[in-house]
Amino acid sequence: MVLSKRKDIDSSRKYGTILIIYFYFQEDFYTMSEIRQNIITRDWVIMATERAKRPHEFVTHRKERPNLPSYKDNCPFCLGNEKLATKEYVRIEGDSGWEVRVIANKFPALSPDGDRVRSDDGLHRTISGIGIHDVVVESPIHNAVLALLPESHIYKVLLAYKLRYKQILDDHRFEAVVIFKNYGESAGSSLEHTHSQIAATPVVPFQFRDRIQEAIRYFDDHGDCIVCRTLLDEIATGSRIVAENSSFLAFIPYAALTPFHIWIFPRMHCSTYVNISEEELNDLSAIMKIVLLKMYHGLGDPDYNYTIRTAPLADKETRYFHWYMSIIPRINKSAGFEMGSGMYINSSIPEESAAYLRDVKIPEI
Amino acid sequence: MVLSKRKDIDSSRKYGTILIIYFYFQEDFYTMSEIRQNIITRDWVIMATERAKRPHEFVTHRKERPNLPSYKDNCPFCLGNEKLATKEYVRIEGDSGWEVRVIANKFPALSPDGDRVRSDDGLHRTISGIGIHDVVVESPIHNAVLALLPESHIYKVLLAYKLRYKQILDDHRFEAVVIFKNYGESAGSSLEHTHSQIAATPVVPFQFRDRIQEAIRYFDDHGDCIVCRTLLDEIATGSRIVAENSSFLAFIPYAALTPFHIWIFPRMHCSTYVNISEEELNDLSAIMKIVLLKMYHGLGDPDYNYTIRTAPLADKETRYFHWYMSIIPRINKSAGFEMGSGMYINSSIPEESAAYLRDVKIPEI
Repeated sequence: MVLSKRKDIDSSRKYGTILIIYFYFQEDFYTMSEIRQNIITRDWVIMATERAKRPHEFVTHRKERPNLPSYKDNCPFCLGNEKLATKEYVRIEGDSGWEVRVIANKFPALSPDGDRVRSDDGLHRTISGIGIHDVVVESPIHNAVLALLPESHIYKVLLAYKLRYKQILDDHRFEAVVIFKNYGESAGSSLEHTHSQIAATPVVPFQFRDRIQEAIRYFDDHGDCIVCRTLLDEIATGSRIVAENSSFLAFIPYAALTPFHIWIFPRMHCSTYVNISEEELNDLSAIMKIVLLKMYHGLGDPDYNYTIRTAPLADKETRYFHWYMSIIPRINKSAGFEMGSGMYINSSIPEESAAYLRDVKIPEI
Repeated sequence: MVLSKRKDIDSSRKYGTILIIYFYFQEDFYTMSEIRQNIITRDWVIMATERAKRPHEFVTHRKERPNLPSYKDNCPFCLGNEKLATKEYVRIEGDSGWEVRVIANKFPALSPDGDRVRSDDGLHRTISGIGIHDVVVESPIHNAVLALLPESHIYKVLLAYKLRYKQILDDHRFEAVVIFKNYGESAGSSLEHTHSQIAATPVVPFQFRDRIQEAIRYFDDHGDCIVCRTLLDEIATGSRIVAENSSFLAFIPYAALTPFHIWIFPRMHCSTYVNISEEELNDLSAIMKIVLLKMYHGLGDPDYNYTIRTAPLADKETRYFHWYMSIIPRINKSAGFEMGSGMYINSSIPEESAAYLRDVKIPEI
């Protein structure tokens, strides 16, 4: 309700200051914010309206990127240096050689070899560190930037995710697949050459299991998939939509955990990314291209992470879980409050941020 | 098991290379890491032994801090500028004026005034943004550093936490108290003058409720408080202890989520920080002084967060929950993997990190 007051203020600018004076004397106007619950993650988010910045205030300057060459002779991801890299799992060819490759990470956090061995004495619970930890080389060109690659190339990256996922599916030592990208140093990236990563873990991570259980609970209580239900609500509301096409909706969630946090939901219910259709792959590359370009031009090319949330390997297709993509620009830092409470403070207003991104014009190239 | 092999290698250095050659040919030696579960948080942590750094590798350089004056005339926290600040809740006097103050945050994320109003239409759940958001001014001196303050001064900071907590306890609009400190920019601090914060929220945050439920489950299954049980185990194991005194144990958890993540557990079972005894306050300031100085000297004065985890306000004393302090140096960045999975990758080995910190000599001043 307070948020809507802010909107009133916005429109009041057109009509003079009478409304402003009216709201100024409302006791709670300058002090009250709203706490919203993200019903998919169950997180409570303090929408710090009093501290809220206008969308453009998040764009203090264009992120400075190092001036990279298009080729580096010691980079194992560059065209011609394939022998410097490790095992290749997927190769997507173009007219003049490969365009996207999935290869084993040279310094994997988890090893693809070995058995899944558990030990548990009640206090010390371990699993052997087996898993997949691959690198998706998104382009043979060292200084390529995903947002600036053609839509048809983004398609190939997304296809590579699907093909590698398919290979992992048959390995019954693994329970969950995590597909993610770290773009920029503050997002945790340590390699220059444009890439994303695919990991598979021998256990369903706790945080993820928690969300699935919430989804099951919602399904049992309401007979609906919580993602499908949220999708319908976002379409009906409209004000938080960033972009859409016939297969996908990109929007800033009602209780976005951080400023400009974007979710891309497939319109069609489907639990696992591995079952994405050809048409959806095309539409996902189209909407990702738009969203990434809007961030690139509208938010000053911020560092970001994205991740694809997909059902555990053993679950395959279920009625209660629905895969989606989450994009998190690294615009603000989390601190002790978030750490200590698990609640978030979001100093932006989702509806305003979405309107801002909708209005970002993408320059013709 | 793999971790212990690494230890074997360490000792093998003394005896020549025979053991090294032996382990080199063990198929899993260079590729296998171990995944440990933190049974208090339920998080799974990949102990990336293959990528593991030795403790000293985390100390690349001493953190550069700006050269601050001892007084700034526009700083509302400095001695003599009290009128620039907002409402004062707690003042702890010393021989020459106040030494610690708790005051209202000028830009609070939550407002102390107003009623707790909820709304819920099944998809949009909100609570009015009421709560406490205070600043604990840890010293009247602008450039004071908590780790370098005398133990008797740290005592006053900890006492201020308790006194303010006591005041909040009577306000039945609030469900949880979060006490935390952000030290340094990468830990989310935006103010120079040494301070920490106290917040109270009108709801028990989800992450926190989750941990309480785990603690209850452990209590029901084993008849014991999970923190008491872990404490006994850490004392018996010994290798992860950083410091101890008669009331507290400071250690790096078996499944530490990040490098040099330190927990300080009170030896006596007690659910809420507000019930900390006089003796415990003294012992907590002593052990905090040691731990903060070991980080300051041994880890190059890193940015850090700490938080006190204490039972929800309505729970007061229970047999299953036990308050504790968590200190997290900001030594590495979390990235897409952590975000996408909720699992952690820790590139240090808790036993090695603890041994390193135990050995850090604190210079006499």
